[in-house]
Amino acid sequence: MKIQEIGEFQLIERMNRSLQKNEGVVLGIGDDCAALKLSSGCLLIATTDILIEKIHFHLEQVTPEQMAFKSLAVNLSDIASMGARPLYALVSLGIPSSVSVEFVDDFYRELGESGKKYNVAVVGGDTSSSKSGLIVNIVLLGEQKEELIVRRSGAKAGDSIFVTGTLGDSAAGLKVFRTGKDTMAPALQKEADFVLARHSFPEPRLGEGKFLAENRLASSMIDLSDGVASDIRRLCEQSRVGARIFADSIPFSSEMKVLAESWKKDPLDFALYGGEDYELMFTVAKKDLKKFGELREKLHIPLSCIGEIVKEAEGISLVKDNSVSELGKTGYEHFRNK
Amino acid sequence: MKIQEIGEFQLIERMNRSLQKNEGVVLGIGDDCAALKLSSGCLLIATTDILIEKIHFHLEQVTPEQMAFKSLAVNLSDIASMGARPLYALVSLGIPSSVSVEFVDDFYRELGESGKKYNVAVVGGDTSSSKSGLIVNIVLLGEQKEELIVRRSGAKAGDSIFVTGTLGDSAAGLKVFRTGKDTMAPALQKEADFVLARHSFPEPRLGEGKFLAENRLASSMIDLSDGVASDIRRLCEQSRVGARIFADSIPFSSEMKVLAESWKKDPLDFALYGGEDYELMFTVAKKDLKKFGELREKLHIPLSCIGEIVKEAEGISLVKDNSVSELGKTGYEHFRNK
Repeated sequence: MKIQEIGEFQLIERMNRSLQKNEGVVLGIGDDCAALKLSSGCLLIATTDILIEKIHFHLEQVTPEQMAFKSLAVNLSDIASMGARPLYALVSLGIPSSVSVEFVDDFYRELGESGKKYNVAVVGGDTSSSKSGLIVNIVLLGEQKEELIVRRSGAKAGDSIFVTGTLGDSAAGLKVFRTGKDTMAPALQKEADFVLARHSFPEPRLGEGKFLAENRLASSMIDLSDGVASDIRRLCEQSRVGARIFADSIPFSSEMKVLAESWKKDPLDFALYGGEDYELMFTVAKKDLKKFGELREKLHIPLSCIGEIVKEAEGISLVKDNSVSELGKTGYEHFRNK
Repeated sequence: MKIQEIGEFQLIERMNRSLQKNEGVVLGIGDDCAALKLSSGCLLIATTDILIEKIHFHLEQVTPEQMAFKSLAVNLSDIASMGARPLYALVSLGIPSSVSVEFVDDFYRELGESGKKYNVAVVGGDTSSSKSGLIVNIVLLGEQKEELIVRRSGAKAGDSIFVTGTLGDSAAGLKVFRTGKDTMAPALQKEADFVLARHSFPEPRLGEGKFLAENRLASSMIDLSDGVASDIRRLCEQSRVGARIFADSIPFSSEMKVLAESWKKDPLDFALYGGEDYELMFTVAKKDLKKFGELREKLHIPLSCIGEIVKEAEGISLVKDNSVSELGKTGYEHFRNK
């Protein structure tokens, strides 16, 4: 069914069916604004992402479920990296006439289901027609006590740098996606499925971020959206420090390693420059390492120490095969001509 | 200068210069999320609008200042219609390569200045390149005590319907804009300027909305974004009531009346079906009319009683020249083929 056949009000009605309310939602869709409760004494945490067709995705290559999940997940990952708890989402859509009502229904259904999974109430948004391709704007609102939020700016020389999970899977998944999984050897299909899932359905590390914050274990934190090389630079800039990354300590999945070998690529490049892993990178101060060591197993997720924070003047370097080189940022930067 | 020449990080740096911080902004641009304080005991009020090139505006017809002001103003108007106080804005932009750096600079400068005027801190957002024309998504966050927020759903049969200001000016402004002001008679230039300003720089009725809420004068409220005919229907649907609108009581500006006469049009049509006035329409219960009468002059803005709320079964009607007719909604509805 074409969107034009049903009109805006029926579209909002269909959205409403998939969206949830909780006791914090005093007013959801239907009034001029959503009205939302917050626990008193907490800070409101807000983040937003805009996703534009032909820049962030190609409509013929994604399902509505993938789009909905991932657009929510990348914002949840930002909330996780502050050590905060997500509460509410506002979603704006610009919908071209080529997009079917079924696509929009499936998008909102997945949004509702993912919202339930992560305890986020999708409380409103705006819909418009578009002559410019599909546009998704997501705003995520969360909360955390002021003294517990973890910033990018808290790292100090001497702190250890940790990451959750394995890195580079998403970039490998993107490569499989672009190459076409069906062109790959039958023996690599399992590995291909694994990295594709990691690319399309990244798990936001909400529990981990909140745990680190509430136990005051992390001195700084960022989520890995553009690859270690780019994101460590952001963290270091905000903290006015340098960093030394140990190549041999970067955690890879066995699946990604197998694929990288089959492509004759270095797995390290996927982790350093690949992006979209949405794992957490955080620093732990020397004085907190013991407590961190005692508590880390409660996270039920692999944690790897991949380097250490150094003084700002020492810059950002990569230690590999006993030699030290400058770690250049080569993450994807919007706008810049390459 | 083309956006590609400066890259994303420099773009964010330029944005940052125009944006403001206040004591509530614990973290603004530069971390994964903004972190914002709220007065405890208040509800968070959130609203969002997406504006898409060729749907909501044509780039060759607007200045960056007009775009920035109006995209903020329409969201502030939503906050006003809840009786709430605006606090923070998040702004996402999708920027095509044809848009200059100067345009973006001017957009953010005006956003910063308007933010200052209305006490809103623009605290973050997202920027992306766009192959789909210019896209602006604004999220406005405000607050109000739960017992004071004014909903669309509180109107009861017997309540009086009021509006702020004059109606139909914006629609007349749009007509001047489309016709071209320079094609109009010299004697009409002053009137043309007036309605153009009303169209491009609508004043969000923040003080009025908050005053009505905090004095518990309004039983329901909505902002006039699509014209009286459309918006009274929304309010009635949420309140499960009907309404009777008195054509002779609808307030027109002398400028709009002069222009409508010159076009041989009925000024009433501009007010009922025109939209984008962003005045407030609210209802006052019989028991509160005396108090309202005593306090209304404090608002320093014309207030007009344009009708009354009736039972749902009586529907929505227009009383004109001693005859009653059904008031059909003919506001612009996105998506629907006309």
